Parts: sequence; structure tokens; C-alpha cells
Amino acid sequence: MVELGTLVLLRHGQSTWNAENLFTGWVDVPLSEQGEAEARRGGALLKDSGLLPDIVHTSLMRRAISTANLALDAADRHWIPVKRDWRLNERHYGALQGKNKKETLDQYGEEQFMLWRRSYDTPPPPIDPDDEFSQAHDPRYADLGDKAPLTECLKDVVERLLPYWESEIVPDLRAGKTVLVAAHGNSLRALVKHLDGISDADIAGLNIPTGIPLRYDLTDDLKPVTPGGLYLDPEAAKEAAAAVANQGR
Amino acid sequence: MVELGTLVLLRHGQSTWNAENLFTGWVDVPLSEQGEAEARRGGALLKDSGLLPDIVHTSLMRRAISTANLALDAADRHWIPVKRDWRLNERHYGALQGKNKKETLDQYGEEQFMLWRRSYDTPPPPIDPDDEFSQAHDPRYADLGDKAPLTECLKDVVERLLPYWESEIVPDLRAGKTVLVAAHGNSLRALVKHLDGISDADIAGLNIPTGIPLRYDLTDDLKPVTPGGLYLDPEAAKEAAAAVANQGR
Repeated sequence: MVELGTLVLLRHGQSTWNAENLFTGWVDVPLSEQGEAEARRGGALLKDSGLLPDIVHTSLMRRAISTANLALDAADRHWIPVKRDWRLNERHYGALQGKNKKETLDQYGEEQFMLWRRSYDTPPPPIDPDDEFSQAHDPRYADLGDKAPLTECLKDVVERLLPYWESEIVPDLRAGKTVLVAAHGNSLRALVKHLDGISDADIAGLNIPTGIPLRYDLTDDLKPVTPGGLYLDPEAAKEAAAAVANQGR
Repeated sequence: MVELGTLVLLRHGQSTWNAENLFTGWVDVPLSEQGEAEARRGGALLKDSGLLPDIVHTSLMRRAISTANLALDAADRHWIPVKRDWRLNERHYGALQGKNKKETLDQYGEEQFMLWRRSYDTPPPPIDPDDEFSQAHDPRYADLGDKAPLTECLKDVVERLLPYWESEIVPDLRAGKTVLVAAHGNSLRALVKHLDGISDADIAGLNIPTGIPLRYDLTDDLKPVTPGGLYLDPEAAKEAAAAVANQGR
């Protein structure tokens, strides 16, 4: 019997819109210079710890793809097979895409703002297909047709992500591979919610820091050996989590 | 019936060892800054001409992979599916890998030197598996076992490349896709030799410039509509070919 492989999650580094405090969602913005440096450092952590991916899964978005490319190049694993899928994409942020976070908070108030940001099952209003930040005419989603979301809550992300997890990622793990998933804050929160069995309420409080590989060793029935996984740089992960928590204040 | 797709060949830009005049072969050197700029420009040419790849095939080598990544990012096609295979690798340069070209010329004389560089069926001496520039312990070739070459002539490249062309690239073309192949001077010469029906003798005189996409529209029986294909920047391709021809003098 083949021993179950190891899962490694990597959230993309800072994007240009993170830096500008805009809601991004499916808008395909690039990494900032800081984000590129984070990706390279994530790859160096993989290499230094000997955690060498055999295959990488990415979303269809530039910031996750660039993160994977830079990290794998830094880890000397640029040559491994690649799979890409929209189901690893960031949560679609609906009509908020392209809006300034602070202005949105001022306009709608804290309660509505936090509901959109952190409630499990309340999506923002849908984006107008003709909005400049809509992906209605993006060729990479043309095959999706009516299935292409116009907005999503985290519950929607869980529901589109899990079939991909089962059909594409689990078989690689069962084949004994070390599997890197380079994706986004909310697609990775959706996966961690599933793996660690986190409740709909408690997932609101969970943030995944950018650029720090998160290792999950799994039992035969795909439960984490260590709940919450293991960050390759636990000190940096703790600091990043504290910084995110303070942002809300 | 689906119309046959379009083939686009892209030779990687300058590598650090091209710049240092060393035989490279399977040694996995990175692009130089100039090579990175060439790759981005190649992607801009794809975008400007509306020749948008639906899928990319690369070798397992960093300089071709980085070229594909940079070119596709510049063309807004970073999200397309990727396939990688060793059969698109550069020709293995045997015991010459890591050697300075000028010193090799001085040591062995012009006749032997040109035989190794340009004869169709005379490979350089095989590399010692313990040589510092051998790939005997490279994990990306571990599955090849005894099939991993220790040296290659262009004929060997043709023989390992064509099965990949038939089994992996042709089906994408038959599905109507625009297929980008990001590879190397000799793996692309091998493919062009096959496509254009160039003789074993005449292929010696054919050089493919770096960083300029070469478009092949093909008939139903996979013959080029225009022999030799069409460079997206014909003027730059002509200048590059002249520069290579002058190198030999």
C-alpha cells in the first residue's frame, strides 16, 4: 500500500490591490514586489525543510499562479506537473470588486461590512455583467457558462471547492505525492474548514497568513494528524495572524 | 469537423550560460536578464497579433519554463493548461556540458568541434554520471532509468521528440487548439525538420532565433501551409539568423 502523501497549502503573497486596500475577488491583479518576495521566501522554506512538491494545483488567477511559479523556482521544483482550476479561485466578491474597503465601510456601516466579509452564507450583491470589474467576458471562464458566479459567500466557495478536492487533489495524495495547493485566502479557508471540521461560525475567526507554507499530514481517512496543520515558519505565521486580527480594530 | 489548430514555437531567450559561452545541454541554468526581456517581448508579440495559446507544452528545464511563464503572463494567458515533458528538452551535450566553447574549439580543432555541434548523427562523448554537470541524480529524470541519455546527437533528439509530438501535441491541434511549444534550439530544430521535411544534411544550416514566436498553420495531414512557418517579427528573425551565421566565422 502506498503511504498517503503530504498536503502543502500556500496562500499567495501581497497583490497590488491588497496594497491599495481594494476588494479584489476574481479581478486578476498581479503580485506586488512584496508579494513576489513572499512567494520566493515560501519556496525557500519548502526547500530548506525538504518538503518538495511532486505536483502543484493553482487557481486560474495570476497572483496564485505567479506565487506557485516563483516559489517552485526557488525550491528547484519548477519542473513538476501543474494543474489549474477555477474552483481554487478566490471568493467572488460580487458588486464589491474594485471598491475601496474603507469607503465601503463608511458607506454601508460596520455591521453590513462585516457580514459581507465574514458571514458564512451572506454573499455581497451580484456584480453587473457589464461592470468593468466583471469577468463575464473573460475567456478563461467561457466554458463555465451559467455556472460562473456573479458573487459568492464562503459557503459557495466550499461547495465548488470540495468536488475539486475529492476528484483532483485526493487522488494525488492517495498516490503518495507531496501536493502543493497555491491559492487564496478564502479558497484555502474553505479547504481548512473541511479538513479540520471547523464550524460555520468558527471559520469566521480563522485567517491564513500569506506566503508561509502550511503542511498537513493526513490519516488514511484524510483527517489531519495535527489539527490546524504545521506552518513551516510558525513564528512568522503567529505574527501575521496577530497583524490580521488587529486590522479589524 | 473541428478545424486544425495553430502551432506556435518559442525558443527560450538567452540563458546565463549562453552569455558565458558554455555548452549547456541538460544543465538547468536560468535565463539572463536579457533572456527574461526576450520572453516578455515574445509574449507581447503573441498578444499584439491575437495569437493566443490555449495550451502550452514545455521541457523540464528552467530556461524554457521561465520563458513560457513570462511570455504567457505578458500575453494574459498565464492561466492556460500546462504540460511538461523531458522529450522537449535541449539536446544532451554529453561530456561537453559545462565546458567553454572557445576552449573546446582550441583543444579539439574546428573539424571535431563542428562535427559535435552540427553533424546529424555524431554525439559528443557521453558524460560521466559522477561529473558535476551530469543529471544522473536529478529527481526529475529518476523515472527514466536507463532511458536517460548520457549524450545525444540531433538524430537522437528527433527520435525521442516525435513520439511526444504524435501522442501529446497533435491531439491538441486536432482538437482545434492554439498550441504553444516553449523549448530549445535543438528540440525545435528537430520538430521543424520533421514538419518541413528537411534533410539530415540541410538541417545543419537551420537556426531558430530566440524569443520570437514562430507560427505554423498546418493542413489536415499536418504539413505546413507555409514552409518554414511565419515569424511574428520577421525582421527581427532575419537579423537574429544573420547574427548566428556570422558567429561561425
